[in-house]
Amino acid sequence: MKSLNIPDTSLPRVVIVGCGFGGLSLAKKLKKKPFQVVMIDKHNYHTFQPLLYQVATAGLEPDSIAYPIRNIFKGQKDFYYRMAEATEIKSEEKLLCTDIGEIEYDYLIIASGSSTNYFGMKDMEEGSMPMKTVPEALNLRSLMLQNFEAASLTNDLDERERLMNFVIVGAGPTGVELAGALAELKTHVLPNDYPDLDFRRMSIHLVESGNAVLGPMSESAQKNAQKYLEKLGVNVWLDTRVEKYDGENAQTNKKSLPASTLIWAAGVKGNILNGLAENTLNRGRYIVNDFNELPNYEGIYAIGDVAAMISEEKPFGDPMLAQVAIQQGINVAKNFINITKNKSPKPFKYKDLGTMATVGRNKAVADLNGVKFKGFIGWLLWMMVHLIGLVGFRNKAIVLFNWFINYFSYDKKIRLIIRPVERKK
Amino acid sequence: MKSLNIPDTSLPRVVIVGCGFGGLSLAKKLKKKPFQVVMIDKHNYHTFQPLLYQVATAGLEPDSIAYPIRNIFKGQKDFYYRMAEATEIKSEEKLLCTDIGEIEYDYLIIASGSSTNYFGMKDMEEGSMPMKTVPEALNLRSLMLQNFEAASLTNDLDERERLMNFVIVGAGPTGVELAGALAELKTHVLPNDYPDLDFRRMSIHLVESGNAVLGPMSESAQKNAQKYLEKLGVNVWLDTRVEKYDGENAQTNKKSLPASTLIWAAGVKGNILNGLAENTLNRGRYIVNDFNELPNYEGIYAIGDVAAMISEEKPFGDPMLAQVAIQQGINVAKNFINITKNKSPKPFKYKDLGTMATVGRNKAVADLNGVKFKGFIGWLLWMMVHLIGLVGFRNKAIVLFNWFINYFSYDKKIRLIIRPVERKK
Repeated sequence: MKSLNIPDTSLPRVVIVGCGFGGLSLAKKLKKKPFQVVMIDKHNYHTFQPLLYQVATAGLEPDSIAYPIRNIFKGQKDFYYRMAEATEIKSEEKLLCTDIGEIEYDYLIIASGSSTNYFGMKDMEEGSMPMKTVPEALNLRSLMLQNFEAASLTNDLDERERLMNFVIVGAGPTGVELAGALAELKTHVLPNDYPDLDFRRMSIHLVESGNAVLGPMSESAQKNAQKYLEKLGVNVWLDTRVEKYDGENAQTNKKSLPASTLIWAAGVKGNILNGLAENTLNRGRYIVNDFNELPNYEGIYAIGDVAAMISEEKPFGDPMLAQVAIQQGINVAKNFINITKNKSPKPFKYKDLGTMATVGRNKAVADLNGVKFKGFIGWLLWMMVHLIGLVGFRNKAIVLFNWFINYFSYDKKIRLIIRPVERKK
Repeated sequence: MKSLNIPDTSLPRVVIVGCGFGGLSLAKKLKKKPFQVVMIDKHNYHTFQPLLYQVATAGLEPDSIAYPIRNIFKGQKDFYYRMAEATEIKSEEKLLCTDIGEIEYDYLIIASGSSTNYFGMKDMEEGSMPMKTVPEALNLRSLMLQNFEAASLTNDLDERERLMNFVIVGAGPTGVELAGALAELKTHVLPNDYPDLDFRRMSIHLVESGNAVLGPMSESAQKNAQKYLEKLGVNVWLDTRVEKYDGENAQTNKKSLPASTLIWAAGVKGNILNGLAENTLNRGRYIVNDFNELPNYEGIYAIGDVAAMISEEKPFGDPMLAQVAIQQGINVAKNFINITKNKSPKPFKYKDLGTMATVGRNKAVADLNGVKFKGFIGWLLWMMVHLIGLVGFRNKAIVLFNWFINYFSYDKKIRLIIRPVERKK
């Protein structure tokens, strides 16, 4: 049995699986508190996922939305990071297993987030591009550019159109923002790169099984977002389901859409670990009590996307959003600190700060505390909120600078195929 | 036979293999001239190679030293780019073969640059890390960080030291600059990331078979550079050859150096293509006349690293430097334009603008037109020259901003393992 080589101390050991929004805020809150904190993540960086779509569409470099974990916790005493993938929980021995060794815990926090959910559709899983991690966003950027290079090589108009077309499945914030960014590439950027291609032939299809884009937002936000998308030339297909995809055509219940690239943004599922009983799960997320603790498993907590704090009003738990993860991480940390002070822990209550989505330049929608914003003001708000969320001054500055350049040049410069992807099928 | 789908026109077609310094300057010079220009490169971007070592050492993001080729030539009429790898020249048919199809040329310019030369040492080729392309620099960055993560896991002090050690073979500009950058990471950056590791145990060995670092520079530059390196804690081994490397120990003619990472910067060779006679080569580079043309091959030219313009004074041709490639590219373009004006072509004469190398903050050496600079002034000059050389305002600004941040924070923030590399052996 290999160990993770963490020193044993008299401090209670908090092991956190995942340095996403939840794990990060929890670990930071425990700074200078009487705990040994061990962070496990297979990536050595925290990813600011809300901006991944801009990496995929050549607007931002990956390095500006990722931040090294060791740097975040520089100087934090009794903090240990290990680059490892958690695989199994042995709850009776209070042991977490990873691909490089095992570690005992006093408190275990599962903050492993979520990954793309294909709902069992094998052809979708094989043929489509996910966009939940930095390497996945880079793969999408490469594939998009490779497809335009390939389109330049063929005179078969059907093939060329297919290579230039995009189908995005799911009109949540990710799908909407990606569709908008692709539409801007189509209008302002790609025609300069590929003067030989006729961009009237390029189609961007946004396919949504519900009856509106941005499902959980206000009706006016939904209407405005759809209006913006259509203005940019995106084909919005509501009440439409993709049923089959063979790498060349996406078969929906209404129409067949030819496209070499299909991006799946229609669902996520919790990244659960092996070892706990099946009945701890609700729709692929751990059922937790009001303190984010797993009933019947002492010392094991789940926060963020992988946790479902279900109640009668919220049969599916809180939404799978960064804000929920952050607030839960902070609440769990506070409760740990309360325990050391013999205070009683406080139940979690999600404070909805609002939701927002951007479609393109000067085009965004935001519902904040019942107040609705749109257009240029919404867009400024969106940028401000996202800049504040980024970790580190360097990243904030470089993202702002890129936005500035992109805005005034109508260009997105990072059209690099650093590692080509193999075309699937 | 697949074609590259380039329209046939009445203009003479200039096919350029490689968008490095030489190919880039040639193609730009032909803007608005009566030629059809076809650029072939397997990467869709131009790489500013002199700063690759800063990508490898977490100081710069890859996207700031690479620039998309299509963007460079935006709006240039009769210019075509194809992402392809040139494989063979069929000179009798005036045909260039690539991995995606063939193309006829009127003029063919081989500007394919150079790659790492292991001089037939198989163990070196398998065990060492090259650093000639962006993906290679990213691999080196990943491996370096992975090694420190692995060092945190072991209590075997020999293994830990090996993981923390670096051997750099070859003390040309690349080797010297890389050694200096690693030494700065050792002093200012890594001890914060890995408080458990004892950095007195980390060794950086710079191994050079000649009797001085920076061989072609002035004696005072050599002396100063070596002094800077030693001040930063780099072990400089002159008159020393690495004879064997098994992934754990580098056996030299003097001492065995334990190190999990060996970076090979000891030599390059021209990237030659198949199809031309063997006797066109001199030490792996095409022999060219004073006009960069290959004797006996009408219409075929070679420029930059892959060309050897040999003479009695210069039995090996001009040095393999960016400046030579740029000047040759411009001269060849001017000669093409001269032909269209019925003027006679001009022979190439290399104008040595000087050489420079930086070792670390405030530490650089430069020999410019007989004037020698060192220390802070040399370092400012080095930065200025490299900023000017970068393509595009965005890249210049982001590089400058990163240097600014790195300088004042004594930090290098881009310590990301985006794609882990498999440990060799």
